[in-house]
Amino acid sequence: MTKSTLIDKLNWRYATKKMDPAKPVEQDKVDQIVEAVRMAPTSSGTQPFELFVVTNPDIRAQIRPHAWDQAQITEGSHLLVFAAWDNYSADRIDAVTQQMTDERGEIPMLNQYYENLKANYLPRDERVNHDHAARQAYIALGFALAAAAELDVDSTPMEGFDPAKVDEILGLQEKGLRSVVLLPLGYRQEDADWLLPMKKVRKSKETFVTEIA
Amino acid sequence: MTKSTLIDKLNWRYATKKMDPAKPVEQDKVDQIVEAVRMAPTSSGTQPFELFVVTNPDIRAQIRPHAWDQAQITEGSHLLVFAAWDNYSADRIDAVTQQMTDERGEIPMLNQYYENLKANYLPRDERVNHDHAARQAYIALGFALAAAAELDVDSTPMEGFDPAKVDEILGLQEKGLRSVVLLPLGYRQEDADWLLPMKKVRKSKETFVTEIA
Repeated sequence: MTKSTLIDKLNWRYATKKMDPAKPVEQDKVDQIVEAVRMAPTSSGTQPFELFVVTNPDIRAQIRPHAWDQAQITEGSHLLVFAAWDNYSADRIDAVTQQMTDERGEIPMLNQYYENLKANYLPRDERVNHDHAARQAYIALGFALAAAAELDVDSTPMEGFDPAKVDEILGLQEKGLRSVVLLPLGYRQEDADWLLPMKKVRKSKETFVTEIA
Repeated sequence: MTKSTLIDKLNWRYATKKMDPAKPVEQDKVDQIVEAVRMAPTSSGTQPFELFVVTNPDIRAQIRPHAWDQAQITEGSHLLVFAAWDNYSADRIDAVTQQMTDERGEIPMLNQYYENLKANYLPRDERVNHDHAARQAYIALGFALAAAAELDVDSTPMEGFDPAKVDEILGLQEKGLRSVVLLPLGYRQEDADWLLPMKKVRKSKETFVTEIA
């Protein structure tokens, strides 16, 4: 039997509530977590989001009050901000097609594929497109959580923040981006985290999984 | 330096186009991929989706024409269907609170937290709630992709399908669920996959990542 070591790490991880400000995450680990985000697959390969890695203490202090004052934002060492495209556009999709052509060579089927994609996406409501882009960022969030756990780095995925304020602080609107999820990175402060001693709660396989054989 | 082995696996994986029907994925590997999905963190721990593991050949053959006839659905051995809650409800959230209380003991703060959650979620538009639930499923999709890659199992994330038809085939509507993404599992047929020899294309770190130091 091939045994996953990732599963052990996924059991080890938890939404860390108290990070140790005296223990910054090593840059080589952050680089690898960022690389996992970059490698995440996305719908039609569009990678319709960007990643912001915020270490600046002032910027993180500005963000914290707009995220229910969650301490990990400043007590961790790195704050990852996943910012999804506000909408699809011809330019954005054409840039994807261009890069693929540059790296793989001209493939006529490819151009037709992305022309169809534009015909499908561009007339849609902006909100539908942003939601779709945000979902892709969540795949990458999963990769970041898994890579962090593999490297024994703690992290806390956060949706509880005011996206408009974070967008303003980071100047995202001008870039056509909207923040969708935050992920502080750090190391747990074991003696000070109320959540750490608690049992991890997940639905049972019987409740959560249905086999159709 | 701590070196991630996951990154190598994430480079190895690709959206497999041709799976070998003669090579089913071993049950112990499927079990571990499913376990990764179950362990995925979700907003407020609600796990607002369910996982369907379809091996039945007839059911998969019924689904395939509603997914652009993508062959992996029947040429792989297992089809994972991520089905998100159609909406949040008091019953669904109360069940989460109840399980937490059962497993962790009575925590007054916890009850207040989930009462606030209900006050926030329940008046919202059904579509907003379903989209939010779907995002959580995408974190778990990321975990499934990572776990499959770790175990040298191929997979192909698919959004290109008619959710209403898949819901009908699997009877999801009656369960208050809507299919959001498919993930066939199998093994690549190396000599017959047009995508395998092609370079993996990702945006450069310079384009994709912004450091705010």
